[in-house]
Amino acid sequence: MSDVLPGLSADGPTVKALDRAGVFHSWSAQGSLDPLPIASASGAHFTDYDGNRYLDFASQLVNLNIGHQHPKMIAALCEQAAKLCTVAPGFANDARSEAARLISELAPGDLNHVFFTNGGADANEHAMRMARLHTGRFKILSAIRSYHGATAGAIALTGEPRRWDNEPGMPGIVHYFGPYPYRSVFYASTPEEETERALAHLREVITLEGPESFAAVILETVVGTNGILVPPPGYLAGVRAICDEFGVLMIADEVMAGFGRCGEWFAVDHWQVTPDLITFAKGVNSGYVPLGGVLMNEAIYATFDERVYPGGLTYSGHPLGCATAVASINIFKDEHIIENARDLGANVIGLELAKIADQHPSVGEVRGLGVFWAVELVRDRATREPLVPFNAKGADAAPMNELKAACIERGLWPMIAGNRIHVVPPCVTTEPEVREGLAIVDEALGLADSYYTGSAE
Amino acid sequence: MSDVLPGLSADGPTVKALDRAGVFHSWSAQGSLDPLPIASASGAHFTDYDGNRYLDFASQLVNLNIGHQHPKMIAALCEQAAKLCTVAPGFANDARSEAARLISELAPGDLNHVFFTNGGADANEHAMRMARLHTGRFKILSAIRSYHGATAGAIALTGEPRRWDNEPGMPGIVHYFGPYPYRSVFYASTPEEETERALAHLREVITLEGPESFAAVILETVVGTNGILVPPPGYLAGVRAICDEFGVLMIADEVMAGFGRCGEWFAVDHWQVTPDLITFAKGVNSGYVPLGGVLMNEAIYATFDERVYPGGLTYSGHPLGCATAVASINIFKDEHIIENARDLGANVIGLELAKIADQHPSVGEVRGLGVFWAVELVRDRATREPLVPFNAKGADAAPMNELKAACIERGLWPMIAGNRIHVVPPCVTTEPEVREGLAIVDEALGLADSYYTGSAE
Repeated sequence: MSDVLPGLSADGPTVKALDRAGVFHSWSAQGSLDPLPIASASGAHFTDYDGNRYLDFASQLVNLNIGHQHPKMIAALCEQAAKLCTVAPGFANDARSEAARLISELAPGDLNHVFFTNGGADANEHAMRMARLHTGRFKILSAIRSYHGATAGAIALTGEPRRWDNEPGMPGIVHYFGPYPYRSVFYASTPEEETERALAHLREVITLEGPESFAAVILETVVGTNGILVPPPGYLAGVRAICDEFGVLMIADEVMAGFGRCGEWFAVDHWQVTPDLITFAKGVNSGYVPLGGVLMNEAIYATFDERVYPGGLTYSGHPLGCATAVASINIFKDEHIIENARDLGANVIGLELAKIADQHPSVGEVRGLGVFWAVELVRDRATREPLVPFNAKGADAAPMNELKAACIERGLWPMIAGNRIHVVPPCVTTEPEVREGLAIVDEALGLADSYYTGSAE
Repeated sequence: MSDVLPGLSADGPTVKALDRAGVFHSWSAQGSLDPLPIASASGAHFTDYDGNRYLDFASQLVNLNIGHQHPKMIAALCEQAAKLCTVAPGFANDARSEAARLISELAPGDLNHVFFTNGGADANEHAMRMARLHTGRFKILSAIRSYHGATAGAIALTGEPRRWDNEPGMPGIVHYFGPYPYRSVFYASTPEEETERALAHLREVITLEGPESFAAVILETVVGTNGILVPPPGYLAGVRAICDEFGVLMIADEVMAGFGRCGEWFAVDHWQVTPDLITFAKGVNSGYVPLGGVLMNEAIYATFDERVYPGGLTYSGHPLGCATAVASINIFKDEHIIENARDLGANVIGLELAKIADQHPSVGEVRGLGVFWAVELVRDRATREPLVPFNAKGADAAPMNELKAACIERGLWPMIAGNRIHVVPPCVTTEPEVREGLAIVDEALGLADSYYTGSAE
């Protein structure tokens, strides 16, 4: 037994029993939980207490971009811990200064200043606040099919069922539809038409809801949990132009899409669009220590040159969070991790998923980039009826639960969302590991096919 | 230069210059900042890059209950880091299980379940959400003179100027006055009368605002940044009784007051009152890793047995946060840190501050318990006119800024809030260190006396 961590059990059933006795879990009915106790992890794999090893195709919660237990990350963490674990945000600190320098240097345009938070939700809360105070306007546009976090402001931004039980929420949020070519609400038949019509819709909402009342448009550069919706060509540039036209700020939520997930440092780099504010978390240090932040441009920074910014938090710029961000960015550079993620997307995942789509009628669409992919499952390719209904619960969700179980049985830990399998392995996953994982997805999809009711194509 | 943290400067001016170039600071106008770069720290002291050593009478932001760089905390952190740095909240994890067990065991009544968050703001957000869903009611009562965090829900709860620039905020918050005997809004002349009248006021607000519309009363067990307002005898028990009478939940925000600050594990222990929900952060692991949480009782837990709880976060129950909480609780027990804090309050700080009050006309009142004390400064003891006006800025705040500078010059890092010096050293501070710090406060108060305009008593 450890001298400094006595009482920690090395026995899986005890770990689970204590969890069920004392730990309240996120987004869950507590009575039905059966959480797997994790004993150890390395790279793209983790292992339970029975020695079962899983390939982590979920990157935990799409945060583990650098993979599990990178030795240099652990060394950096312990080096910083030995020097200074915590310091109030009002002081200056070497790790925080260097993290801000590295992140600003990577950021597009003149997004040169970083406000550090504990995670993605509070990053979005603060970005929204900065936008409101900078513009003197109150309302914010946010997309249907989006997730921005679970605090009162972030959940009000969120455009999906997780908001519903939290209403009425913070006022001033107007939801609009973003592009989703496979299920176009705009009756578009090509990605180009989807872009054109989605932009016309956004302009129409702004016009009819009061152009001068809007502080910002917030969007996930690539929509994450709600579908890995890659913006069609020209969409982000079009949003940028509409924002400029109406004096509305553009906030890119890159909590999930940033820091390698899309094969770029920032997902907007893929489209060479510069927002006014970028929020980040997850991949910035892979969640080795809770950390998030807001990147802002010079104009927004100048608003708070003489005016007090009315927000803050005790752990803003936490030394361990910042030290692991510094280490992670340097490791990404040294080990060419961005390039690996980009190459996996372009040369392995995209091609393999296209083959899988060919072989499984239940695959309606595959889409993505980098290590950020969705396999969308349908009962009928002609009608595009989803394999399970929107927001399916209980028996309705059974096919996806069976699919999840089939993957886990075969040693793959998948990310299931709605009627989709999200293929979101760590950015450091090797090509053989990715092929191994995709082969398991291929096998498991036989199950999805058994629910297919459409005609073969 | 470090192999794993290259680029970190060991040069104070560089650290500060990079900070000013890239780091956006909490609650500040950015143009006027001059943050002190901290090079190292130990116990109750930290040191800048010029070798100046400061006695930390602020515990950073009243979070560093175990003191700086406790060797066993660092060892625990590195031990857990070597095993498992991060895991998604859906799994079970030994550090998280053990942290929940220890915290529940310490908690009063049947507060047996812990929902872990990243800090205090999100803890309060989730406590409020649980209360709303459990009761099926929407409105929350929160105290004027309170701080609950800076996300949209937590700042709406907050009863002080930091909320003003964030309005309109989340709806449904009703603010009431809590007890403050020294500046009674109830025209009370004794603490007992203050209790009676503050409770009558709370009952009146509930009655006139709709008893059946309220989900919860939230209060800081001991009000922190807004004055270290210790509840007068009978107040907390009275609130508990009113909550029971109206079917309203009682939420104790112990983000600042808990885990030793008041010389108790939980501040409510001092009054033997059991709330329905307790929120914590800061002292639970002294901010070595960002961590907070909500403790809930069995009835609230049961609400989410079959019903999905609509909230969560990626880093809920972070292994490093939980491991440092486990280590901290064990160290507190082994080293009798709760008792040290309690004794310092009862036998040193209280007595010494009473002497200081005798010697300085500008001291209007001293109050507190444990290592949680306020020295409230006035221009006139008879009128109780504060040394600086409420929410003073610029030149109006000069006397308190001078006082702060005088302490810093003498090697003491103070916590200044409004017209008060808060004496909030780490719980591990030794008696000689406390006496040394109080002697500096004593010296510096000559400056406050120079602003005194009342008659000598």
